[in-house]
Formats: sequence, C-alpha cells, structure tokens
Amino acid sequence: MDTARIKQFAAEFDPQPFHLDENAAQESIFKGLVASGWHTAAVGMRLFVTGGLPFAEGLIGFGGELSWPRPTRAGDVVQLESEIIDIKVSRSKPHQGIVTVRAEMFNQKRETVYLLTAKLLVSKRTS
Amino acid sequence: MDTARIKQFAAEFDPQPFHLDENAAQESIFKGLVASGWHTAAVGMRLFVTGGLPFAEGLIGFGGELSWPRPTRAGDVVQLESEIIDIKVSRSKPHQGIVTVRAEMFNQKRETVYLLTAKLLVSKRTS
Repeated sequence: MDTARIKQFAAEFDPQPFHLDENAAQESIFKGLVASGWHTAAVGMRLFVTGGLPFAEGLIGFGGELSWPRPTRAGDVVQLESEIIDIKVSRSKPHQGIVTVRAEMFNQKRETVYLLTAKLLVSKRTS
Repeated sequence: MDTARIKQFAAEFDPQPFHLDENAAQESIFKGLVASGWHTAAVGMRLFVTGGLPFAEGLIGFGGELSWPRPTRAGDVVQLESEIIDIKVSRSKPHQGIVTVRAEMFNQKRETVYLLTAKLLVSKRTS
C-alpha cells in the first residue's frame, strides 16, 4: 500500500484527514496514515481478478458482506486468499449459477485487514 | 460516471473486459461499458463523505453489506441518499457508539444501482 497512492485515492473518493495527511492521521484514532477501506477493497479486487478464480465470463458480483478488522497502513504488503464456499444452480435460469466466495486479506504480519463474502454470477460450462 | 475514469479505475483495480473496452462490453452480459462495482462503491463513499453525516471523528467503518442491483454505466449521473437506521452505545467503551447507516445510490432514471448498510464507529459528544 503505497503512501502516495493512498493519499491520491482518498483525495478522489474518501477525503478524510486520516487518509490524506500523516500529521492529522497521527492525531486520529488510527495513530498513523491509513488507506481508505474502499481502497483496500479495490486492491482486494485487483488481487482477486489477477490471481483468482477462472470463471469464463469474469467476476460479476451481486453483492456481499465485507469488514475491515484492522486498517491497512502506508507501506503494508497485502495478500488475498479466496475460496468457494457455496455453489447454487439458478432455478429460473438453469444454465446459470451463483457462487459464493469468501476472501480474506492479510498484511505482512499475517493480520486480517479485510474480509469479503460475495455472491458471483457464473454460467455452466457447455459440454 | 466518466468513461475514461471507468476504464482507468478498472485498469488499476478490476481489469475485466466489460470495464475496459466498449466492444468487449457490448459482447458481455452487460451489453455496454459498465463501471467496476468497487468504483461505484468508491464514488458512493465520495458522496457520503462530502455530503453526508457530520460525525466529528469522520466516517470510520467496521464493515457492512453491499449490493449492486444494476451496473453503473458510462455517462450515468448518480446520487446517494443515506439515513441512520440504528445507534448503539458501546458496552465496553461507553463514550463510543456504533451507528448503522443505510445508503442507496440512484442513477439518472432513479434506478437503484448500489445499496450499502454499514456500521460506523462514532464518539459521544462531550458536553
């Protein structure tokens, strides 16, 4: 998590002092510069798309649940682990299914910084 | 939702064809270029921070639930409406509380494109 990119992302999408300025961040509840949770989530998507599950149509999400147990901080190195926890065939469209994926992001100390459980639209393989 | 910014955001965080290229997007399930759901969520945060609720320490989220009932498309003009649906005082830290906020984003046709229910950490006013 690059410091300059944390500030740049925040300036565009989440302009709060603890994402924008080291001194203000020191005075905040975070005691240091932290990334916007939405920046963390976006980085998680990057890791998921580039290293994740090979669905033919791509990763198309309906929604899900997320949490940020800890902030990501400037200089953090993060990694994402994901697993499929459920697969359901659509009743109305039997060639489609809904896959539930759980992803967990860790920082370099192996602390969890982000959790996402999301439902994705997928198509059945045509044989 | 600006076309160039949709592609730029996607190239960094969600590099899938239906977010990057009009022709590929036409061939996809979306039938046109759509923004990454995480771009939509980030824009929602921008609207929330700049037009939203005046908590003294800022908008500090633990997590929540989100969904994208429809994609946001290039050229869409979006707006966000938010309301507080619950306030709980922390048992362990009585000067703090958890506020639950529900936010809904609409496009220019008043169709819902994004829903977020999030829990935020807030401090009690000192009197």
